[in-house]
Amino acid sequence: MSALARFSINQMTVKQLPLPELVAASARMGVPYVGLWREPVQEYGTEAAAKLVREAGLRVSSLCRGGFLTAVGAQERRLALADNQRAVDEAATLGTDTLVLVCGGLPEGSSDLPGARERIAEALAELGPYALRHGVRLAIEALHPMYAADRCVVSTFGQALELAERFPAEQVGVVVDTYHLWWDERVPEQLVRAGAAGRIASFQLADWITPLPAGVLTGRGQLGDGSIDLRAFRESVDAAGYDGPVEVEIFNEELWAGDGEEVLAETARRYVRHVLD
Amino acid sequence: MSALARFSINQMTVKQLPLPELVAASARMGVPYVGLWREPVQEYGTEAAAKLVREAGLRVSSLCRGGFLTAVGAQERRLALADNQRAVDEAATLGTDTLVLVCGGLPEGSSDLPGARERIAEALAELGPYALRHGVRLAIEALHPMYAADRCVVSTFGQALELAERFPAEQVGVVVDTYHLWWDERVPEQLVRAGAAGRIASFQLADWITPLPAGVLTGRGQLGDGSIDLRAFRESVDAAGYDGPVEVEIFNEELWAGDGEEVLAETARRYVRHVLD
Repeated sequence: MSALARFSINQMTVKQLPLPELVAASARMGVPYVGLWREPVQEYGTEAAAKLVREAGLRVSSLCRGGFLTAVGAQERRLALADNQRAVDEAATLGTDTLVLVCGGLPEGSSDLPGARERIAEALAELGPYALRHGVRLAIEALHPMYAADRCVVSTFGQALELAERFPAEQVGVVVDTYHLWWDERVPEQLVRAGAAGRIASFQLADWITPLPAGVLTGRGQLGDGSIDLRAFRESVDAAGYDGPVEVEIFNEELWAGDGEEVLAETARRYVRHVLD
Repeated sequence: MSALARFSINQMTVKQLPLPELVAASARMGVPYVGLWREPVQEYGTEAAAKLVREAGLRVSSLCRGGFLTAVGAQERRLALADNQRAVDEAATLGTDTLVLVCGGLPEGSSDLPGARERIAEALAELGPYALRHGVRLAIEALHPMYAADRCVVSTFGQALELAERFPAEQVGVVVDTYHLWWDERVPEQLVRAGAAGRIASFQLADWITPLPAGVLTGRGQLGDGSIDLRAFRESVDAAGYDGPVEVEIFNEELWAGDGEEVLAETARRYVRHVLD
């Protein structure tokens, strides 16, 4: 089996590559999966993107991202639900069964974390059956606690798992992302629980490097450059029974400034050296 | 009882004020406690600082900070222990029973969080009895998980509490800091456990604002400017049985650029409005 058999390159890691180049380079390098984002896919055309990927012999490991489900007003909530239904449709068109959800932060002026978390559950109750009918599973991603206010009030793997467990496993799963979870010593045990229940929908990787940049959005590290024991993490996820794609998703200005194909090749090498072997 | 009866101003909140001005302004405004830092105290002279505070009728709520106990090498570890003993001595001289510990991040090139956490425990076993003999308690501060790599591998209140519980309560307690803990829904329950065991050694406040600045060290918010329900947090800490000083510790470039006495007065007003009432 090829060392890259489970490797997936998330589109944002090499966002300088237009979709056709990403797909061509991936196919040439033996990368079997790509993780896609809605905006560049929409720009290219969802049907056309699906065809491009399919004809290159690749598969889509996940679509990023739905979510942003914490609004209070009825109108905003209706818009968010409708947008998430479109995201489900797009995932189905692309042939992936995984829609990653970034659930949303606190509404302006609010400090009510439990309330925001409950509104996410209410939205999942509506979206879950819709997704299932389209062959797509909603994948709750816990984001690092440093994003709790402005991006995602689901801050730990335990919270994501408890939220998912309120719904059938075929409707709602969880994302495991090393960047967001690496500091939390409860994760290995929770992975066992998540794996046994078939809840692990996606496994994403980035390393943790410091200092963090302003805004803390684009400071993720290339595999092996940071503080995370990526191999041990991958072994825990494997041991939990997950055998799907391993998707590398790095937001990093330096990588974006480089040659996209070189970054892709280097990321694949780093994956083999720091995650796999 | 004065509204400020439990209010403490941490020196770093108004670091533009030299110690004599901080003390004079606090006394004039009816602020009964100051939280001090080792470096400015050493610069002024520890004995002189103790005298200054005492003669103004103030008390020192805590001394920041000892810690940095995660080094691997024997020589570095000896130096860290010796420095922490000096910190205990300084706390005793200042008349505070609380030495705040920032425990330290991962050593260069390491990804071994459990190992680093264990080395902290080894150091506490040596320092705890020394501190007790000097009438000082070590107070473990969990820092936000965004500091796990480079400043403090103790990332949650639960971890801090479990670490403290390995030692007698009169030797090792925990710090409750809203900025570091606000996102964690397990804290209220853990506060009950910590309070019942007499482990809460210090209560510090800052609000959470975004976007975070580069390096994420100086982006704490003035009380009421951010996402934290400070009043609810204070009520939880009260309900846990803690009745000591409530110390406001804000690292914020804008506050530092302002007039120190005005910032102090405003912080006291914010405390009454957003924390107390």
